[in-house]
Amino acid sequence: MLFFTQCFGAVLDLIHLRFQHYKAKRVFSAAGQLVCVVNPTHSLKYAPTRCAAVQASTEQGILPPCHHHEAVHDPQLVPCTCPLFSCPWEGHLEVVVSHLRQTHRISILQGAEIVFLATDMHLPAPTDWIIMHSCLGHQFLLVLRKQEKHEGHPQFFATMMLIGTPTQANNFTYRLELNRNQRRLKWEATPRSILECVDSVISDGDCLVLNTSLAQLFSDNGSLAIGIAITTSKVHSSEAEM
Amino acid sequence: MLFFTQCFGAVLDLIHLRFQHYKAKRVFSAAGQLVCVVNPTHSLKYAPTRCAAVQASTEQGILPPCHHHEAVHDPQLVPCTCPLFSCPWEGHLEVVVSHLRQTHRISILQGAEIVFLATDMHLPAPTDWIIMHSCLGHQFLLVLRKQEKHEGHPQFFATMMLIGTPTQANNFTYRLELNRNQRRLKWEATPRSILECVDSVISDGDCLVLNTSLAQLFSDNGSLAIGIAITTSKVHSSEAEM
Repeated sequence: MLFFTQCFGAVLDLIHLRFQHYKAKRVFSAAGQLVCVVNPTHSLKYAPTRCAAVQASTEQGILPPCHHHEAVHDPQLVPCTCPLFSCPWEGHLEVVVSHLRQTHRISILQGAEIVFLATDMHLPAPTDWIIMHSCLGHQFLLVLRKQEKHEGHPQFFATMMLIGTPTQANNFTYRLELNRNQRRLKWEATPRSILECVDSVISDGDCLVLNTSLAQLFSDNGSLAIGIAITTSKVHSSEAEM
Repeated sequence: MLFFTQCFGAVLDLIHLRFQHYKAKRVFSAAGQLVCVVNPTHSLKYAPTRCAAVQASTEQGILPPCHHHEAVHDPQLVPCTCPLFSCPWEGHLEVVVSHLRQTHRISILQGAEIVFLATDMHLPAPTDWIIMHSCLGHQFLLVLRKQEKHEGHPQFFATMMLIGTPTQANNFTYRLELNRNQRRLKWEATPRSILECVDSVISDGDCLVLNTSLAQLFSDNGSLAIGIAITTSKVHSSEAEM
């Protein structure tokens, strides 16, 4: 009986995912764009001390990884960069992706341009929507976070981090685009390195920021579709180009 | 003596404007883009009742002008739409532009693409930066407002209104673009009609919204340059186009 109940649950989940995917396809009918349905995850941490080490070091002009431990024996080891959990793991940068996939079950998608469809935008803050994006020979982490900076006024913050060093990150430009209801909002920037804390990028507000009313205007039936494109950055075009 | 003092003051003002203009030219070196230096104005009103009539009527499905008076004898008369002052003036839509220029001294600029350079971004909220923009046979009002929705956390709101009817406004698309420090933020939307309240557009957050840290990243020495472009809107391109 339990087996049949579980089977029925799995079928329902499949139907739900199929429906979300169909909805996304309807919204993003452009051929060749991969639509990825991303379900929310309630964040299990938001330790204010998580970035203390980074901030202190940044003030001294050094850019260290986001350490959880005071003493790191091997300077090439980086801590787990998953923004969801306070995870004690640390390892080499090359194995961060497999750690994120295996331990934190973060999906990875291929393609220069994809659509990130975050579902259930109404869920209370703090909530995160996370995927990895493999493109141009590198892996990127896209984080959409619903957070209350001012009590009772949740905002949405979206940013892209390269799973690589800050020097490597400088070679790329990422674009996040929202397009609905005769409104379009585009954010373009150089991705930050995963060695910088995603928490501090978001708390600095140096990312795409949406208030609740804009998020509602751009979302369709509780889901927010964000078009993502990554390019290699040329010498930055003159800032005058508008 | 007073005459000489005034002359000296005027010369200083000219030097200051020339310096701002030079600075803007340096930032926006693209040929042919008109740079307009816009000085801030402290708003003399923010009467919460200003939009009450509009909101009540909108809830009933009617879109009236933003009335200050309960009884309007001629339905073709519109009130003063200047967001700075509670002005008792009302007149026909065709003469709103000359009223704004003559009474409120709002500058008017020509050209499809201009750069709006708002100075003194550090001034405390509430502050407005306003110009009119003449383009494609119509006049538009650009409003940048610094306002505190949450105490102690000022934000910047920018929107464009057509000095015309909502039906006319639907024929256009406006774009506001910020571009500095390897970051680019673009907002595109249909302008709202001046018959709708600029206050309610801003309080709804249906416009370009910047928190203080983003405004600082995009500003140069206390001035924020916003590239403005207006186009006639085709049948809105499929929302899938990203």
